Amino acid sequence: MTDSPPRRDVTAGSIWRVLVGRPLLSSEKAHEQITQVQGLSALSLDALTSVAYGPEAILVVLAVAGVGALHLILPITGAIVVLLAILVLSYRQVIDAYPSGGGAYAVSRANLGTNASHVAAASLVVDYTLTVAVSIAAGVGQLTSAFPGLASATVPLCLAFLALLTILNLRGLGDTARAFLLPTMIFIVGVLGITIVGLVHPLALHAAPLGHPTAATHGLEAVGVLLVLRAFAAGCSALTGVEAIANGVPLFREPRQVRAKRTEALLGLILGAMLVGLATLAVRFHIQPRSGQTALSQIMGEAVGRHFAYYFVSLAITFALALAANTSFGGLPVLASLLARDHYLPHIFTVRGDRQNFSTGIVALALFSAVLLVAVNGATQRLIPMFAIGVFTGFTLSQIGLVVHWYRTRPPRWRRRATINGVGATATALSTVIFLVSKFTAGGWVVAVSVVAFITLFRRIHRYYERAAELLGLGTIPPKPHPSAGALVIVPVTNISRLTARALSEALSLCPEVEAVTVVLSDGDEEVVDTLSRRWDEWDPGVPLRVLRTNYSSVVDPIVAFIDEERARRNDQVVVLIPVVVPTHLRYRVLHNHIEVLLSAALRTRTDIIVARVPMALDPSPPAR
Amino acid sequence: MTDSPPRRDVTAGSIWRVLVGRPLLSSEKAHEQITQVQGLSALSLDALTSVAYGPEAILVVLAVAGVGALHLILPITGAIVVLLAILVLSYRQVIDAYPSGGGAYAVSRANLGTNASHVAAASLVVDYTLTVAVSIAAGVGQLTSAFPGLASATVPLCLAFLALLTILNLRGLGDTARAFLLPTMIFIVGVLGITIVGLVHPLALHAAPLGHPTAATHGLEAVGVLLVLRAFAAGCSALTGVEAIANGVPLFREPRQVRAKRTEALLGLILGAMLVGLATLAVRFHIQPRSGQTALSQIMGEAVGRHFAYYFVSLAITFALALAANTSFGGLPVLASLLARDHYLPHIFTVRGDRQNFSTGIVALALFSAVLLVAVNGATQRLIPMFAIGVFTGFTLSQIGLVVHWYRTRPPRWRRRATINGVGATATALSTVIFLVSKFTAGGWVVAVSVVAFITLFRRIHRYYERAAELLGLGTIPPKPHPSAGALVIVPVTNISRLTARALSEALSLCPEVEAVTVVLSDGDEEVVDTLSRRWDEWDPGVPLRVLRTNYSSVVDPIVAFIDEERARRNDQVVVLIPVVVPTHLRYRVLHNHIEVLLSAALRTRTDIIVARVPMALDPSPPAR
Repeated sequence: MTDSPPRRDVTAGSIWRVLVGRPLLSSEKAHEQITQVQGLSALSLDALTSVAYGPEAILVVLAVAGVGALHLILPITGAIVVLLAILVLSYRQVIDAYPSGGGAYAVSRANLGTNASHVAAASLVVDYTLTVAVSIAAGVGQLTSAFPGLASATVPLCLAFLALLTILNLRGLGDTARAFLLPTMIFIVGVLGITIVGLVHPLALHAAPLGHPTAATHGLEAVGVLLVLRAFAAGCSALTGVEAIANGVPLFREPRQVRAKRTEALLGLILGAMLVGLATLAVRFHIQPRSGQTALSQIMGEAVGRHFAYYFVSLAITFALALAANTSFGGLPVLASLLARDHYLPHIFTVRGDRQNFSTGIVALALFSAVLLVAVNGATQRLIPMFAIGVFTGFTLSQIGLVVHWYRTRPPRWRRRATINGVGATATALSTVIFLVSKFTAGGWVVAVSVVAFITLFRRIHRYYERAAELLGLGTIPPKPHPSAGALVIVPVTNISRLTARALSEALSLCPEVEAVTVVLSDGDEEVVDTLSRRWDEWDPGVPLRVLRTNYSSVVDPIVAFIDEERARRNDQVVVLIPVVVPTHLRYRVLHNHIEVLLSAALRTRTDIIVARVPMALDPSPPAR
Repeated sequence: MTDSPPRRDVTAGSIWRVLVGRPLLSSEKAHEQITQVQGLSALSLDALTSVAYGPEAILVVLAVAGVGALHLILPITGAIVVLLAILVLSYRQVIDAYPSGGGAYAVSRANLGTNASHVAAASLVVDYTLTVAVSIAAGVGQLTSAFPGLASATVPLCLAFLALLTILNLRGLGDTARAFLLPTMIFIVGVLGITIVGLVHPLALHAAPLGHPTAATHGLEAVGVLLVLRAFAAGCSALTGVEAIANGVPLFREPRQVRAKRTEALLGLILGAMLVGLATLAVRFHIQPRSGQTALSQIMGEAVGRHFAYYFVSLAITFALALAANTSFGGLPVLASLLARDHYLPHIFTVRGDRQNFSTGIVALALFSAVLLVAVNGATQRLIPMFAIGVFTGFTLSQIGLVVHWYRTRPPRWRRRATINGVGATATALSTVIFLVSKFTAGGWVVAVSVVAFITLFRRIHRYYERAAELLGLGTIPPKPHPSAGALVIVPVTNISRLTARALSEALSLCPEVEAVTVVLSDGDEEVVDTLSRRWDEWDPGVPLRVLRTNYSSVVDPIVAFIDEERARRNDQVVVLIPVVVPTHLRYRVLHNHIEVLLSAALRTRTDIIVARVPMALDPSPPAR
């Protein structure tokens, strides 16, 4: 049992340590568990903060039909809130059925088979990435609405928030949840408070709006069914994230299911209230899309004026939004580890980092999101058409899976449960179709292509691992080891030094048959060779020196050719023992071992020999003068 | 003797092969030797093509004193041509004295001692880099003068020419010299031809000048001594490169010295004629600096109009200029190899590539030049103030060195020879002082700082190598090898497979004492461990399995701790034999060996153990379906 924290190297390592924290014991992982309120901040920020871009997404679509169409936001929001209620009810049942965390992947794998689970997993991967990008872009959008001078730094700000978030997550979820509690509370209280002020105050402090309207005064198209469906689809981006609590049940403190179900209900209530309130205010204040101003910023300006409360809550929203991406950082690495455990992703995704989190997944998510943010230049509304398709595909598969689950297990009241999930499945399936049809050309195709690409990747990786396991004979008992009769150790040398002596000692310790080889360029200095041979004889280390001559300039190729000859001539094991100098200071490394680097590279894929290094430390601190 | 060309890996390697050519035999190196005319193109393009920026550099300085001062270009060019004559005479003597290539570094090392040779070497490194940058920038400048539409692509064009040149040089000097012959001839004939047309044709075809004049109509300062000196210093950029032939004597075909001296004289004549001709035309046509138009382009336009001849010669100049950088590619890698042989640069600079050239030096030069070109945005005139200082420092040290050489060896007519070199030394030393004083604030300081930095670098590297040689006991006879009594081989395993079996076979071949270790996370699945232990007993490979438990997430740290324990417990040799899977396709590598990578990294600097890999090839081509 090794219980002291593992040691680390200096400099780069120490900076990493300060950022990420000391290595955690496995037992410390258990303490990182959360209460209802912490759950609301750690797992629901995504869903809650989507009020910052959902209503606006509806307005942007409606604006195409002119200012007159904007009041349609109210009935559309009504439909979305109904869908929200269905989802919350459905997901409380998911918590009952899968207390160990019922992600769409796990549920559909258990109930609907491999193919459905791949669709679910690929959809989720795409949407986790989009959630990070949308949340951070919207957060920065809110910040630049409040402080228009920052607008030119949109992309750098996005990447800075992303970096911050990645580091928080590499420290572990517990730190994260605690760090998120305060902004979440300020966000909820602030947005609800401002909404109430706007609704009840007869003389809201209408600040003059900034930016210029982007809505058409006369509609570019009539208010048709397709437009309303597009607006509905855009608005449903506000519902992403309601599944996160059900996925994260194991993170809750006991009694887990009770706490998780309560948190889910709380989320539904708060989110529904915010959406209805903001839609009402948008109509009352005649809010329309404006350049450089989010709709939420306009509503807040109208309700409380651009004073202290506006700036304070704006900052809270920015933080809450940027941190909302945490839902994905909680979700994707776990999903990737499940996929890797089932051999659908590289096994490295199952490896926990020092802080007991899945660091590879966290880093992969950060990289994908960074690419996406740079690609759309940090503009939220360019991401919205891609958003929600993946999430709703996952919703649908989860719900269908649960219907199958209830039908199979038939617990008490299974018919009622199956009906609720059936309604959920129908509603979300219908929504998914609406999204795909109405958003396809505007960016939805990117999601479709990515999902297919991920499914293909999963399958290819799986097929590879299957074949590799077969070739390696995993699960079978292999023949017993059969040591070879003799062995030959080849030691490439360039001079006679203490390192050469050490390498020969190690070689002779391994086996009595050792050959030293050195390479001479045919146009090289013959004198150097003669000197080396003469001094070798003088030294008489008990090992013959083979001088290889070459007409080419490479010194590595003759050694490889010599190894080949020896391999062909005898059936024994061949070990190549390369002496290397390891200077204590990294900066001196470039001054040594060019042959070792080239030879190692040349032999790296050789599977018929063993390549070993004999390192010798060198501390060439200049002598005191 | 291995005489078949070395084999290479696929893909990346094959592309490299096509670009750079097959490996050459050392004997083929000898054939890559050149005649006078080839020497002119391979070693003198730098000096010759400097007419494309030298005269212009004079005009740019004079323009500060107004249009009226521009006629001073004639006397200043006269002074430069006198200096040229002195240099040509001096360098013909260098060829006599150092037929093996008398670079400033070699000459000053032999005659003036280490410190002077460091100054020479550092100056040359700086100026070789500047030559590449200036030549390429001027070549692209000529191109964009002829085709103004390309002006926006200046930097990408510069980098493309640099890449082309680097590849040509990686193929070897012979290819290079042959490739350069045609553009050199077109350049010489074209520029001389156009100059003669401009001088003798009474009705030159004056094309309307493009761009707008940048010269002040009224002088910003009076024509003072400093201004004239600055103009002279700027114009001396036309003299860089006259030393290249003397450095490259060994490249010539026999009789080397005769050929080299003739080439040097030929260079002096052609360059002098061009400079005088162009200066005369500049005055006659009232040429002044213009935006987006080089002076040479204006002179050519005035002389022959912007017709076929103009465009043809412009293209030839562009190519000749871009290829002129070849002087540096011929010089710097050789200089770097000399410095590395004397332990002043990393030894890798002495290693010849497959094409028998010093590829590390070539690549280093290309990188430095690329940085410089990007830093000044491809603008020739921003490089001119840094240019020539280094070259003239080298000139001066060479000449002084030769005076010492003649005085020491006293061959026939040594007094006359010493006088010539003495005059050369005085003239170039004076010029160097003029350069430093007149250009210091405009960019000369960069050169001064770089030279000091390089000298410091040389000394630190030298001191390191001295100390390392002492610590390694180079030059002494070390104690005889003393094999240790026993050895222990530790094999980290994660499962039972053919690879595990193979690794244990290899381990047992090396020594009878072998231990397999595996790491279990304390919160991991106990069942997995039990299964592994049970199947291990069933298999009974003759090697005990040690199960290491850890409370942290790292699987590498417990193995390292175990190795430490074993090292502490016994005095024997410890070998760590890591089994690795080597998939035949590179893209599958990411799917394997995470532990190997981490463990190798953790053990890379351990000097008390031997780390070896047992690779097993895996060709998981999917089975036919």
